[in-house]
Amino acid sequence: MPTIVVEVMPKAEILDPQGKAVAGALVRLDKNEFTSVRIGKRFELTVEGPITDELLAEAREIANDLLANTVIEDVIYVGEARSADDAQGA
Amino acid sequence: MPTIVVEVMPKAEILDPQGKAVAGALVRLDKNEFTSVRIGKRFELTVEGPITDELLAEAREIANDLLANTVIEDVIYVGEARSADDAQGA
Repeated sequence: MPTIVVEVMPKAEILDPQGKAVAGALVRLDKNEFTSVRIGKRFELTVEGPITDELLAEAREIANDLLANTVIEDVIYVGEARSADDAQGA
Repeated sequence: MPTIVVEVMPKAEILDPQGKAVAGALVRLDKNEFTSVRIGKRFELTVEGPITDELLAEAREIANDLLANTVIEDVIYVGEARSADDAQGA
């Protein structure tokens, strides 16, 4: 079924202790290529039928009102999921 | 600075109580367009210099070994961030 993806990340000026902890772990494991790590959230909203502009607008509203805490987080993406071709996961 | 994005989602066969809670909240708010919600994580790994295939391979290894709990989660994407043109966020 079609899926709308919402991505939420901590604002740049906000400390991300969870990300800092992962970054520290990477250094301890001698993986020094990565200078910083930030951790956010990824929501998949499943819809019935095609993804219309109205649905995207609705998703954007939900993202800002419900899914993200806009005091400390930014909604960085609302839209369709990547196509399968883009998948580079495990 | 260049950023490698890692996306991790709960496996399809695993219950996602957090997502279910959001889906329930949406129904109570009369937003019935969305039939299900699943919540995963999005990591941004900052690197110095260009994103090479070696760095991506390293990131893929880290994603599977450290960032995802592969018993209950899948790494669905490891790669470059979306270009700014794709951004449809708030």
